[in-house]
Amino acid sequence: MIRISIDAMGGDHGPEIILHGLDNVAQRRTDVRFLIFGREDAVAPVLRKYPRVAAISDFTHCEVSVRMDDKPSQALRHGRWKSSMWKSIEAVKAGDADVCVSAGNTGALMAMSKFCLRTMAAIERPAIAAIWPTAKSESIVLDVGATIGADAHQLIDFAILGSAMARALFQVDRPTVGLLNVGVEEVKGQEDVREAGRLLREADLTSMRYHGFVEGDDIGRGTVDVVVTEGFAGNIALKTAEGTARQIGEYLRAAMSRTLMAKVGYLFARNAFQRLREKMDVRKINGGVFLGLNGIVVKSHGGTDDEGFAAAVELGYDMARNNLIDKIRADIDAFHAAMPAGRAGRQADGEPTDL
Amino acid sequence: MIRISIDAMGGDHGPEIILHGLDNVAQRRTDVRFLIFGREDAVAPVLRKYPRVAAISDFTHCEVSVRMDDKPSQALRHGRWKSSMWKSIEAVKAGDADVCVSAGNTGALMAMSKFCLRTMAAIERPAIAAIWPTAKSESIVLDVGATIGADAHQLIDFAILGSAMARALFQVDRPTVGLLNVGVEEVKGQEDVREAGRLLREADLTSMRYHGFVEGDDIGRGTVDVVVTEGFAGNIALKTAEGTARQIGEYLRAAMSRTLMAKVGYLFARNAFQRLREKMDVRKINGGVFLGLNGIVVKSHGGTDDEGFAAAVELGYDMARNNLIDKIRADIDAFHAAMPAGRAGRQADGEPTDL
Repeated sequence: MIRISIDAMGGDHGPEIILHGLDNVAQRRTDVRFLIFGREDAVAPVLRKYPRVAAISDFTHCEVSVRMDDKPSQALRHGRWKSSMWKSIEAVKAGDADVCVSAGNTGALMAMSKFCLRTMAAIERPAIAAIWPTAKSESIVLDVGATIGADAHQLIDFAILGSAMARALFQVDRPTVGLLNVGVEEVKGQEDVREAGRLLREADLTSMRYHGFVEGDDIGRGTVDVVVTEGFAGNIALKTAEGTARQIGEYLRAAMSRTLMAKVGYLFARNAFQRLREKMDVRKINGGVFLGLNGIVVKSHGGTDDEGFAAAVELGYDMARNNLIDKIRADIDAFHAAMPAGRAGRQADGEPTDL
Repeated sequence: MIRISIDAMGGDHGPEIILHGLDNVAQRRTDVRFLIFGREDAVAPVLRKYPRVAAISDFTHCEVSVRMDDKPSQALRHGRWKSSMWKSIEAVKAGDADVCVSAGNTGALMAMSKFCLRTMAAIERPAIAAIWPTAKSESIVLDVGATIGADAHQLIDFAILGSAMARALFQVDRPTVGLLNVGVEEVKGQEDVREAGRLLREADLTSMRYHGFVEGDDIGRGTVDVVVTEGFAGNIALKTAEGTARQIGEYLRAAMSRTLMAKVGYLFARNAFQRLREKMDVRKINGGVFLGLNGIVVKSHGGTDDEGFAAAVELGYDMARNNLIDKIRADIDAFHAAMPAGRAGRQADGEPTDL
């Protein structure tokens, strides 16, 4: 049985979309239970519309809701201990839930998750991992915005976190890992990326296969299972890809509705276009995953629909079912065992790095 | 008359593609002359095939060619003073040419351009600017990989360089400028981006309208005319967008050839697809522009075809015709005049920044 705690008040559309999403999940999975947190007057009426969800859920009333535009510090001040967001995270900490899912605002959710769950002992900073559709299948990209900048050891943390997630989700024993870099030779400044590469190659872990550097266009190509980068570049890459996909979709719509011939062509090919839309459907891969904390939290897009929220919940389900946290802990231990004592440490080389 | 110096030995396909490209330009522009540099045995036979190009060109034999896989340091060692790449850059320095175009390797071309032309007096580091097709029209994005990292004053340099280029190319008096950033609130580490934003807002230049921060998906949306970022994130964004466009093109091809109905639809809509292909055609926007040097150098993609190389040459033509270098010099002076003396200086605030 997988127990999933749900912040029913997160997202742009409130409990209606969220409980509808849970109903979709309940239709597809039999071994799942929900712990739902939210304001009773908002949630209870909707829950009556979804008896299948009600039958496998415990509901807890929370007076406070974190708003979508609350700053992290505001959310912590007003929502700690008592908001639906906090309570759903706390259920993971207490061991009542295996994973938490919220469509609430990212900054607040990350701040509360860090405060409540705490960062894992051997991990310096958590990361947000995104699942990226590729020409081959899917890859994991992290960090896509939890923090800005990362030194070599933080990049290695991300590699460990991401490859454990790949093993939990992709049915692959030894996922390939690449460090995002720029192709220009002899460019100075990325000493941290180079150092992380050296250490990963040296450690030669059984839990991942270190591929080397990858560039921006390798992400969509699916060159590696896990793409590791610091949060600024990762966030820019993610948003740029989303923007490019939207832009091409608009070109395509405009081109297909411009002439009668094109419209006729569209009618003939509409199944093909449907397939293309499904391929490009961001709802299917909805969910940023907070990694590196003592518990798994999945962030769903705030503006998603029921199927998108269901996808985020099922992502959380899959990671819990495959014991992601245990995998991460084992991989951290393996990395530290593989490295000569001094090198695995935080201040190993004493070399100043310039990013 | 615009005089363009051409490195005929750069690129993956050699003089054939390059002279073919010049022939395309010569058909479209009457007030252009070429200074062509390359190995005589490679260039002369091809030049005989394009009498229209030969009639408006001066050819100079250069024994040495920079290879596509030469490292910048190797290229400088073997090719300085004498290679076709060097000679074509030097023609700009000597005032014989208004702009230089090469499809040679980026690192070597930048290293030689810096060495030969030198960075402009008030500019700390050059940048590579890319022209990015957007939902509205086109934007300029810089830096896309000349250097890694940028402090607040370097970001301001890039804003000045990019907005001068926008005025030279886009027929707009006061282009909008955005600083690329991540959306997450209260994320630490981007103090340089914030400081650059403060200074640009304060300077309130007549040569640009500072818009504020933009995110990755704003680039393709065309939110601003000029997107400013440091070279690592800029390069990752550019490559990621290229990869995403290629990926969607492949999805589309696969979808349209899968069933008979889709194939029939494709036939009806082929003009629409042709339009889409043209929209997505990277050849049309071929060319990275080196900005911040005492002269303009355009880098064409190495693997481009004749029409792509022609696009790079015409980009150089347009910038020279519109006096880009003079615009940049005037804008730098205007910025320094607008700022209180201490603030415009390099070490103005003495505040440590943490990226």
